[in-house]
Amino acid sequence: MSKGRVCLAYSGGLDTSTILKWLILEGYTVVCFLANVGQEEDWAAVEKKALALGAERMVIEDLQREFVEEIVFRAIQCNAIYEDRYLLGTSLARPIIARAQVRVAQQYNCQYLSHGCTGKGNDQVRFELAFKACNPSMKVIAPWRLPEFIQKFQGRADLLKFAAENNIPVSSTPKAPWSMDDNLVHCSYEAGVLEDPDHTPPKELWTRTVDPTDAPDKPYNFTIHFEKGIPVKVVTPDGEVSGDSVALFKLLNKIGHDNGVGRVDIVENRFIGLKSRGCYDTPGLTIARLAHIDLEGLVLDSKVRKLRDQFVTLEWSHCLYNGMYFSPEREFLENSIIFSQKNVTGEVRMSVYKGAAYVLGRKSDASNLYSQEDASMDSLETFSPMDTTGFIAIQAIRLEKYGLQKIKDGEPLSK
Amino acid sequence: MSKGRVCLAYSGGLDTSTILKWLILEGYTVVCFLANVGQEEDWAAVEKKALALGAERMVIEDLQREFVEEIVFRAIQCNAIYEDRYLLGTSLARPIIARAQVRVAQQYNCQYLSHGCTGKGNDQVRFELAFKACNPSMKVIAPWRLPEFIQKFQGRADLLKFAAENNIPVSSTPKAPWSMDDNLVHCSYEAGVLEDPDHTPPKELWTRTVDPTDAPDKPYNFTIHFEKGIPVKVVTPDGEVSGDSVALFKLLNKIGHDNGVGRVDIVENRFIGLKSRGCYDTPGLTIARLAHIDLEGLVLDSKVRKLRDQFVTLEWSHCLYNGMYFSPEREFLENSIIFSQKNVTGEVRMSVYKGAAYVLGRKSDASNLYSQEDASMDSLETFSPMDTTGFIAIQAIRLEKYGLQKIKDGEPLSK
Amino acid sequence: MSKGRVCLAYSGGLDTSTILKWLILEGYTVVCFLANVGQEEDWAAVEKKALALGAERMVIEDLQREFVEEIVFRAIQCNAIYEDRYLLGTSLARPIIARAQVRVAQQYNCQYLSHGCTGKGNDQVRFELAFKACNPSMKVIAPWRLPEFIQKFQGRADLLKFAAENNIPVSSTPKAPWSMDDNLVHCSYEAGVLEDPDHTPPKELWTRTVDPTDAPDKPYNFTIHFEKGIPVKVVTPDGEVSGDSVALFKLLNKIGHDNGVGRVDIVENRFIGLKSRGCYDTPGLTIARLAHIDLEGLVLDSKVRKLRDQFVTLEWSHCLYNGMYFSPEREFLENSIIFSQKNVTGEVRMSVYKGAAYVLGRKSDASNLYSQEDASMDSLETFSPMDTTGFIAIQAIRLEKYGLQKIKDGEPLSK
Amino acid sequence: MSKGRVCLAYSGGLDTSTILKWLILEGYTVVCFLANVGQEEDWAAVEKKALALGAERMVIEDLQREFVEEIVFRAIQCNAIYEDRYLLGTSLARPIIARAQVRVAQQYNCQYLSHGCTGKGNDQVRFELAFKACNPSMKVIAPWRLPEFIQKFQGRADLLKFAAENNIPVSSTPKAPWSMDDNLVHCSYEAGVLEDPDHTPPKELWTRTVDPTDAPDKPYNFTIHFEKGIPVKVVTPDGEVSGDSVALFKLLNKIGHDNGVGRVDIVENRFIGLKSRGCYDTPGLTIARLAHIDLEGLVLDSKVRKLRDQFVTLEWSHCLYNGMYFSPEREFLENSIIFSQKNVTGEVRMSVYKGAAYVLGRKSDASNLYSQEDASMDSLETFSPMDTTGFIAIQAIRLEKYGLQKIKDGEPLSK
Repeated sequence: MSKGRVCLAYSGGLDTSTILKWLILEGYTVVCFLANVGQEEDWAAVEKKALALGAERMVIEDLQREFVEEIVFRAIQCNAIYEDRYLLGTSLARPIIARAQVRVAQQYNCQYLSHGCTGKGNDQVRFELAFKACNPSMKVIAPWRLPEFIQKFQGRADLLKFAAENNIPVSSTPKAPWSMDDNLVHCSYEAGVLEDPDHTPPKELWTRTVDPTDAPDKPYNFTIHFEKGIPVKVVTPDGEVSGDSVALFKLLNKIGHDNGVGRVDIVENRFIGLKSRGCYDTPGLTIARLAHIDLEGLVLDSKVRKLRDQFVTLEWSHCLYNGMYFSPEREFLENSIIFSQKNVTGEVRMSVYKGAAYVLGRKSDASNLYSQEDASMDSLETFSPMDTTGFIAIQAIRLEKYGLQKIKDGEPLSK
Repeated sequence: MSKGRVCLAYSGGLDTSTILKWLILEGYTVVCFLANVGQEEDWAAVEKKALALGAERMVIEDLQREFVEEIVFRAIQCNAIYEDRYLLGTSLARPIIARAQVRVAQQYNCQYLSHGCTGKGNDQVRFELAFKACNPSMKVIAPWRLPEFIQKFQGRADLLKFAAENNIPVSSTPKAPWSMDDNLVHCSYEAGVLEDPDHTPPKELWTRTVDPTDAPDKPYNFTIHFEKGIPVKVVTPDGEVSGDSVALFKLLNKIGHDNGVGRVDIVENRFIGLKSRGCYDTPGLTIARLAHIDLEGLVLDSKVRKLRDQFVTLEWSHCLYNGMYFSPEREFLENSIIFSQKNVTGEVRMSVYKGAAYVLGRKSDASNLYSQEDASMDSLETFSPMDTTGFIAIQAIRLEKYGLQKIKDGEPLSK
Repeated sequence: MSKGRVCLAYSGGLDTSTILKWLILEGYTVVCFLANVGQEEDWAAVEKKALALGAERMVIEDLQREFVEEIVFRAIQCNAIYEDRYLLGTSLARPIIARAQVRVAQQYNCQYLSHGCTGKGNDQVRFELAFKACNPSMKVIAPWRLPEFIQKFQGRADLLKFAAENNIPVSSTPKAPWSMDDNLVHCSYEAGVLEDPDHTPPKELWTRTVDPTDAPDKPYNFTIHFEKGIPVKVVTPDGEVSGDSVALFKLLNKIGHDNGVGRVDIVENRFIGLKSRGCYDTPGLTIARLAHIDLEGLVLDSKVRKLRDQFVTLEWSHCLYNGMYFSPEREFLENSIIFSQKNVTGEVRMSVYKGAAYVLGRKSDASNLYSQEDASMDSLETFSPMDTTGFIAIQAIRLEKYGLQKIKDGEPLSK
Repeated sequence: MSKGRVCLAYSGGLDTSTILKWLILEGYTVVCFLANVGQEEDWAAVEKKALALGAERMVIEDLQREFVEEIVFRAIQCNAIYEDRYLLGTSLARPIIARAQVRVAQQYNCQYLSHGCTGKGNDQVRFELAFKACNPSMKVIAPWRLPEFIQKFQGRADLLKFAAENNIPVSSTPKAPWSMDDNLVHCSYEAGVLEDPDHTPPKELWTRTVDPTDAPDKPYNFTIHFEKGIPVKVVTPDGEVSGDSVALFKLLNKIGHDNGVGRVDIVENRFIGLKSRGCYDTPGLTIARLAHIDLEGLVLDSKVRKLRDQFVTLEWSHCLYNGMYFSPEREFLENSIIFSQKNVTGEVRMSVYKGAAYVLGRKSDASNLYSQEDASMDSLETFSPMDTTGFIAIQAIRLEKYGLQKIKDGEPLSK
C-alpha cells in the first residue's frame, strides 16, 4: 500500500531522477511536475524518463505568461535589484513554479510536495515558503535535508551507483563544473569552480549572451514603449512586437543576447546567513530595467521616486530574494508599485553595443513634469530667479547655525 | 571709494568676465578665484585676462588632492549615486571649491562672495549653502538673480555688446550648443540642444571618454586594491600607481577614457523643483564604484549592507546633490560610512571593453564572511541541512497564517 | 476702480481686521472667508464685523466633516506623529481650510488669496502650498511678508493706532501672552512667554483639557470600535455614538477633556529651518491614536507594520507638517495607508484617569494572526520547539563569524 | 564519568531546578550561574538550593552597572522603542546576562551552556544568538527543545512529581497565573490568564509601579541632567543623585514607581513569527526616555533627528528585540547613536502625577539651534520674511505642476 502521493518537482536530471526512484522505493506514489518558465528543455524526453522510472504521471505546464506578467513586469516597474547588481532572475521564477506545483498536487490528490534543492541554498526556502503560504496543510519532503537520504548519497559516486542499480539513464554529456538554473529571464551559474570568487568564469560558461568581443561591430538601435511602467511594444530595424508579453520579452532577450548585454558576476548574501558567488546573464531584463529607469526620470515626481527607491524597490527585491513572495508585505509593497506607475507611459530609444546598453532619448505625453520651457536656463517663466534667493536663505538657516557653532567650538571648516 | 571687496569665482569665460567688469563698474574691488579641481584650463591665460579686466588679484588654487581624498573617496566608499544613474561629479566638487573661495575671501579681506551661476540651477544653491555654512557673515552677490543685472543682460547678444564696449576678449571658438562643467571626476553637458530629452547627444559632445565604437578591440585588464574602502593601488599591464591619490584617480580616468566607460544620459530631478536633462561622462569613478561594490559583496555583512544602502548611500547622495555638504546630517552619515568600511580591504580584478566594465574576480584577507568551505553545496561543516528545516518552519509561521486567511476569505492563491 | 477681488482668510481678530481694512484702502474688493473646523467662535459677530469693515461678503463654511473624514481619520489610520510627540493638530486642518478658501475664491471670482500668517511660521507655507496646488493661477497677498505692510505695522501699537483711526473694534479682553490656534483636533499655544522653553505653561493656558489634578478621582472606562482603522463607534457608561464621524470625534474629545488627556509641551523643528516651542492639547486624537496602535498590535502583520512605521507614518507626518498635503507623495503614501488597514477592525477597551489613557483589552474577528493557542507556551500545535533549534542555528551563522573575527582580531567580547 | 561540564542559567525556580537535577542525572557536572541585573531575589537561598541539588558551584554576579551603562543608557540615547509601545526591558538585559554566562562557563571550563527558556519565546533566541556570537565553540543544551525532556515533562504535574522524587523544594507560595521577568529596567508579565488579550491585568499583577489611583495626590517635580544623551544627575525635592549610574537609575525607578508611571499592555510581534500579549511596567526608563526626547527637541538638528528616528532608533530596537545585540549591524547603529548625541547636554524639568509624566521645561548651553530671538514671531533678525516668499515659490513648483496635471486630467481638487 502506498504511503501517500507525492508531487515532485522533476527536471529529468540525475538528482531528481534519484529522488523519484527513492521515493517510489520508499513506498510513495509520485506525480512528477515540471514547470516551463522559459528554460531550454527536451520536454518529451523528460516525460518519457519520468514515466520509465515509475512516476504515475508527468505534468508539464507552460507558465511563461504568468511568469512575465505577474512577476517580471512587476520587477521592471520597481527597477528591482538585489545588492546593487543581481536582477533576481531565479527568485522571480520560484513563486510561479511553487504555486503551480501546489495546484497540480491538489489536482492529483497529493499529500506531499517534494523537490531536489540542496540544504544550503536559497531555493529550498523560496519553494517551501511558497508551498506553505499556498497550502499550509501539505507536507514537504526535502530529501537533501533528510538524514537517511544524505547518509545514503554522500557524493556523486553514490548517485551514479544508485542510477546504475536502478536503471536510471545518465546523460553522456560530461557535467559542467558549475551548476546552472535557466528560465525566461536569465541563466545562473554557481558552485563548482565558481566557489573560488577569484576564478574568472570561462568564456563558455555564459549561455544567454554572446561574448561582448564576439558581438556585432555596430550598435543596434531600437525603441521600447511603456504603459504604466510595463513594456508594451518594442520596435527594431527588423520589425516590432507588441501585444504578446512573452514574445516581447523574448525579443528583448534576443537583442541582449546578440549584443552581449546583461552579464553579472558577484558575491552575494544568501538569506541563509552565508555568502555565495553567482554569475548571471540576464539580457532582456537588463535592457528593460534601464529603459524603465530612464523613463521614470522623465515622468516620475522626485519625492515619490525617492520614497519608492528607498523603501519599495529595496524591500520588494529583498522579499523576492528571500522567498517571501506570498506574504502580506509583498502585497503591501506591490500596491505601492502599481500606484507609482500611473504616469510611467512613454517611449525610450535605446542602443546596445558589445556588452553595454545605452539610452539615446525618451519622450512621453503622460506627464507635465518635464518641460523644455521650464528647464531652459534662459526662460524666466516658471519662477523668478529672485525667488531662489529666498529659497537659499531659508535652506541656509540650519547650516549657518551649524557653521557658527563650529566656529564657536573652535572647529573651523578647514576640514 | 570702493563699495567693498568681492571674491568672485572666475573662469575666464564670457559670463564671469562680464560679471567681473560689471562689479568693477558698480564700484567693487574684485579678487578673482579659480579652483583647480582637475578641469582642462589654460591657467595663465585666465590669470592674464582677469588682471587685464581690472581684477585686483587672481588666485588659482590646486584643490585636486582635497577633492579626491575628502569627497571622491567618500563617494566611492558609499557607492554614491543619485536617482540610480548620476555619479554626482559636479556636486562632489562644489563644496571643495566653495570652501576654498571662502578661505581666499577671508585671506584678502573680502566682504562679498560672487559667482556666475544661473538662477534656475543646482549650483547656485550648492555654492551659497556652502558659503553660508563656512562663513555666515559674508554676503553673496549672485548677479544672475539681481533684477538690474538680468534686465541689462537679457541674452548672449547683450553680453557680446557689453564685451565689445568693455574690451573683454571673446573666444573665437564658436560656443558649443550646450553648457559644460569639467572636473577631475567627470564632465557634464546640459542645456541648449540637450533640453530636448529625445535629442541624442552628438558623438563630439563627449570629452572624457572615447566613443565605445572607437575604443580598442581588446579588453584591457587591471586590478584595483582597496584599503578600508579607499582605492590605494591600481595595477595595469602598463605599470602601477599607488600612494598618490590624484595620480591613481587619473589612471582610472585614463583607463575609462580610452575604453569609453562611464557615459550616462538622464533626465534628473533638480533640488529646485524642476526636471532637467544631463549627460555625464565619468570614467574613473564609474570603474572605482563598480569595483568597490564588488569587494563589499565579498566582505561586508549583509545587514550592515542593507542599512547602509537604504539610508546612508541614498541620503548622502541626496545631501551632496542638494548642496548640503556642510551640514550636520552629512557629518552624521559620513561617520557611518567610515565605520562601515573597516573590513573593505582587498583587491578586485577588472576588465574594460568598448564602453563597459566587468569584474573578473576578487579576493580579501580582511573578512571571514566568505568561505569556499561554507558556500560549497557539498560541505556540511558550517551547519546541518536539518537546521534549515527548522528555519523554514519558523519563517513560514506568518505566511501560513496569511495563506489560511486568504483561503478563509475565499481568495485562493490562483492570483 | 477696484484693483481686483481678494479672498481673505478672516478670523475677526485684530490682525486680519487690519489686513481687511488695509486691502480695502489699497483698492481691493474683499471677500472674507472663515472656515469652521471646530474651533470656538462667535460666528455672527465675525460676520457682522467683516461687513462693518467693508468686506463685500463674509463666507463661513462648516468643514468639520471633511476635516475629520478626509484627514483626521487618515492620521489615526497611520498613527501620525511628528518628532515623537506632536499629533499635528494644526497641520491637519490647514489643507481643508486652504482648499475651501480656493473654492470660495473661485466662486466669487477673486484673483487673489490673502491670509494673516506671520512670515516666520509654518502656516504661511502650508496655506500657500495648498493654494498653489489647488489653483496655480491665483496670486497670493501675504501682508506680513510685504515690505510696505511690515514697515507700517511694526508692533501691536501700530495695529491699535490703525484700528482706532479706522473704526476697527478691538476686543476689551486683554490679549493672552501667547498665541493660540483652535480646531476640532486640538488647541495650540506658542510665542509670547512660551518662547522661553524653560517657562512652564501656566495652568490657565490649557483650554481643551482640564488640569489632571482637577480631573475626576475615578477612572472612566469606554470602548472604541474600529473598521479598517477608522473609529466607528464609541461606547461609554453614559451612552454610545456611532455613524456620525464628527459627533464621535467630539465624544472622544469630551472624554479626553474631562480627564486631562492629551497635553504636550515640546520644542519642535519648523519646516522653515528654526526651532520653536509649542504646547498642544489634543484630547480625542490622543485617545484614538493609542487605541488604534493597540488594535494594530493584535491584527497587523509584523513586517507590514515595520514598513508602515518606518516610511509611511513618518513620511506622511512630515508631509502634513510641511504643508505638502496636495502632493504626489502624500497620495502615494495615503494609498499605502489605506491598503494596510484592510484587517484593522475590532474593538479596544480603554480607561482614562487624571491625564493618562490606558488600554484594558482588545479583540477582533478580522485577523487570524493572534491565537491564544499559538501564543501559549504550553501548546505545541503551531510548530515544534525543535524547529526553533534550526531557526537559531541559521540565524547564528553570521553572528558566529562575527564573533570568530572579533576573537581573531583580539577584540574579545568583554566589551 | 561526567559527560562534561554545563554552565546553567539557574534562577532557583521549579523549571531550572528540574533542569539542574535532570542534567546531573543525565551525567553532566553543572555550574550554576545567576546574573544580578537588578531583579528581586533571595540570593543566598538560590545558592543554597543549587548546591543542595548537586550543583558543583553557584556563581552569582552583579551585572547592574554594565547593564545600565552599556545598554540601558544606549536605549535612552536613541529613544529605543519596539512597535511604538514596548521599551524592551527584557531584551536589554539578555545580552549582558548571556555574555557573563559565557565568561563564567569559560572560567570553569564548561563545554556546554544551558537555560530554561521555553521553545516558543524570544528569550531562547536572544540567549543563544548571544552565546554563539560570544563563543561559537560552546554547545547549547536547551531542554525545552529536547524531545526526551519535553516527553518527560508534559505539564506542571510532571515537574512537581519529579521534584517530589528528587527532593527539589517547591515554594509554598501559589504560582501566579502568569509568568514574570524582572530586572532593573522593568518587570514583564505574560502567558497564563494574559493569553486572552481582552483580559485586563488585575491590579495586583503590577509589581514595579503603584496603581495610579493609589499614587500621591500631588505632582512630584524633579530635574534630569543629561550629558551627551546620558542621564548624569537627578535633582528632586528630597535630594539629588549623580555620579553613580545604578543609583541614579534606581532613583528614577522609585519616582516612577511611587507615581504609577510606565505601565504598558500590548500585543506584540515576536521574532518567532507569532503574536503574544505582554504587560510591562518600566518606571524609570519611561521617564528618562521622555526627558531625553524632550531635550533632543531643543538641541538636535532636524535632519539628523529624522534620519536617526527613521533608521537608527527603529533598527536598533529591532536588533535588541530579536537578540541581535552581538552583531555587526548593532555596532554599526551604535556608532551612529553615539555620534548623534554630541550636543545632547542640558537639563529637563519633569513632573509625575498619578500614572503620567510631563515635561515642565528644558534648557541647554550645548547648542545654538534654539534661540528665543530667532523663534520670536516679532524678530526679523535671522531672516527676512520676504525670503520666505521665494522659499514657498520654489517649493511650490512641483505642487503647481501636480495641480495643473490634475486639472488637465479632470480630477479637480474637490477631493
